[in-house]
Amino acid sequence: MVNFADRMDGMKVSDIRELLKLTTRPEIISFAGGLPAPELFPVEDIKAATDAVMDEQGRAALQYGPTEGYLPLRKKIVERMEAKNAIHTTPDNIILTAGSQQGLDYVAKLFINPGDVIIMESPSYLGAINAFNAYQPKFVEIPTDENGMIMEELDKVLATTENVKFIYVIPDFQNPSGRTWPLERRKKFMEIINKYGIPTIEDNPYGELRFKGEYQPALKSMDTEGLIIYMGTFSKIMAPGYRIGWTCANEEIIEKLNLIAQAAALQTSTIAPMIIAKYMDMFDLDKHVDKIRETYKHRCELMINTMRETFPPEAKFTDPDGGLFTWVELPDYVNTRDLAAIALENNVAFVPGSGFFPNGGNNCCMRLNYSCMPDERIVEGVHRLAEVIKAALK
Amino acid sequence: MVNFADRMDGMKVSDIRELLKLTTRPEIISFAGGLPAPELFPVEDIKAATDAVMDEQGRAALQYGPTEGYLPLRKKIVERMEAKNAIHTTPDNIILTAGSQQGLDYVAKLFINPGDVIIMESPSYLGAINAFNAYQPKFVEIPTDENGMIMEELDKVLATTENVKFIYVIPDFQNPSGRTWPLERRKKFMEIINKYGIPTIEDNPYGELRFKGEYQPALKSMDTEGLIIYMGTFSKIMAPGYRIGWTCANEEIIEKLNLIAQAAALQTSTIAPMIIAKYMDMFDLDKHVDKIRETYKHRCELMINTMRETFPPEAKFTDPDGGLFTWVELPDYVNTRDLAAIALENNVAFVPGSGFFPNGGNNCCMRLNYSCMPDERIVEGVHRLAEVIKAALK
Repeated sequence: MVNFADRMDGMKVSDIRELLKLTTRPEIISFAGGLPAPELFPVEDIKAATDAVMDEQGRAALQYGPTEGYLPLRKKIVERMEAKNAIHTTPDNIILTAGSQQGLDYVAKLFINPGDVIIMESPSYLGAINAFNAYQPKFVEIPTDENGMIMEELDKVLATTENVKFIYVIPDFQNPSGRTWPLERRKKFMEIINKYGIPTIEDNPYGELRFKGEYQPALKSMDTEGLIIYMGTFSKIMAPGYRIGWTCANEEIIEKLNLIAQAAALQTSTIAPMIIAKYMDMFDLDKHVDKIRETYKHRCELMINTMRETFPPEAKFTDPDGGLFTWVELPDYVNTRDLAAIALENNVAFVPGSGFFPNGGNNCCMRLNYSCMPDERIVEGVHRLAEVIKAALK
Repeated sequence: MVNFADRMDGMKVSDIRELLKLTTRPEIISFAGGLPAPELFPVEDIKAATDAVMDEQGRAALQYGPTEGYLPLRKKIVERMEAKNAIHTTPDNIILTAGSQQGLDYVAKLFINPGDVIIMESPSYLGAINAFNAYQPKFVEIPTDENGMIMEELDKVLATTENVKFIYVIPDFQNPSGRTWPLERRKKFMEIINKYGIPTIEDNPYGELRFKGEYQPALKSMDTEGLIIYMGTFSKIMAPGYRIGWTCANEEIIEKLNLIAQAAALQTSTIAPMIIAKYMDMFDLDKHVDKIRETYKHRCELMINTMRETFPPEAKFTDPDGGLFTWVELPDYVNTRDLAAIALENNVAFVPGSGFFPNGGNNCCMRLNYSCMPDERIVEGVHRLAEVIKAALK
């Protein structure tokens, strides 16, 4: 009876999501989510910061606030991007969003007419595919290797494709692959997008979570043409529960995103950015991030080492330098959706890889998360998964 | 160089918004905003509730949570809608949103293809017009009188208009007019939408803020066909700074809104709904709402009485039974945008009425807010405004 908009045809409940609902059962060892380790959340410190905000500015914290977000936090973000990413910018180039996810939605809303082309790494972040999908684009995937996007392929596509609205990339510890672009690729990428004048979303939720290898500068730090739309978040370095991320872009784009944000939600939380700013005043966020890095380094090494010991040689997997995920490729006759169902029967969960490919296919991959499981469950889960994989091999 | 989506053509910075930026100067007496009175925010009680959440469930409060929102708060919302609005529903029929505003965006995204028709009261809420506008609908306005939407006109429009996707109404203390639909209109409205099978957003941010006159049941309480999409919010009965509202609808619609919400922002804040639920456990929200009602009653009466004493007879205005706004109509040769600039020179601000008409025009109206100014500023501001109006009359 009710007649929904055409865009809803592309937005269906995925079978993966239904599968994942089962992973909340306590007996399940889940490598499926992308959750930060909750035992590391600085609960007491955040409570102290919250009390200080309520004591000092309670009424302002509970009132409406500006669409672009609390200025003192935007200033701190500018300082942090300068210190951590060598990005020079100003608070006027920043809008706070409900996690980076809302930034993805807003940028999609800003650029995409139905049928426009969006370029993504193959594979790429499932949540970005979902956010963009609501605006009915065509997706073009650029092949990747162990060093991320293959730049020659990108150049070829841009030379021959019309209506490309933007490129979406995660150069650091990519979700889902865990891969990082080396410096040469970053330089080459900037050359290419400058040549074609194509705006690019650089999504960097994990950049500060490097636990080995060499620091790589953000694309945004090399952006001479104002083409990079950079996204950051407090979800992985502090806590996701407040839903505070940010988008940093040229002023024309920020002004448009402000219009979109005001129409879509008026603003993000007033109080949450005040708490985060106060926490950063009262406590040492860098020290906290060090703790997260150490923990994830340990868990990642434990998972990768256990996989090396137990997985059959047919299973190839990445060895990330940071972030939350590793990526497994099995022989192409294995369907990881079927495998996920079998794994669940054995009380271990992962996300099948096909959802990370904007145009589907690629059924033989899986994403594994190591950030939020204790040691013994990582070891036990990998052992179980190894058995499930071995049984699926011919 | 950069090529934005077509929808951006309809999303421009309004001159009204530029004007309103000036109203934050402290010397300005502003009737322009729609802010709740911050001195009534239960800062100490909310702080206590927050501390309890952090002590009892800190890690869960800072982690990701479900897209539809914290179940205990959805349960409390169900109970409150039953008690206050005679609405019978279940937590599965509710999704939390970042204020009602985000609900408006999500429902627009669910229904509107470019060119589809949306029906609104004339005038209607500016924020809803903006939210819908991003999806490029045609707006059809239904004339209103002192009792709200004129149902015969609605019937006529529905009989002769194709592609009507939904109707948007605020039956209680409407923004901007302050008007409330009597029972007969509500019944007639339900008859009409049932006849045509048209979904309707009932936006009810102010329903609990009745300070005189007789209680009227929500449309949703009379909804036998699952056509009403009801929106509520904690912004006006508790505090807007958390950005927590809700949408209540049939399960098919809620399921679709969940897909949209997940793609657009993953979820609202995890911790904010936990704090609100805890506050409702620890303290008496009804008693707090009583206090708000008393204050707004006083301020409304003071504003209306001062307007009666000082405004010229050519200025007609509404006498609201609740909510935050009154609406002034001047002779049609007066342009309230020009008037707003003159008023600002006299350090008093209001919102010109034309922005509240989806298709523009109607330049002779203004919206006045009485909720967030102390007595002496209300009296002084109305006196100043009266002089500005008198000077504009022929």
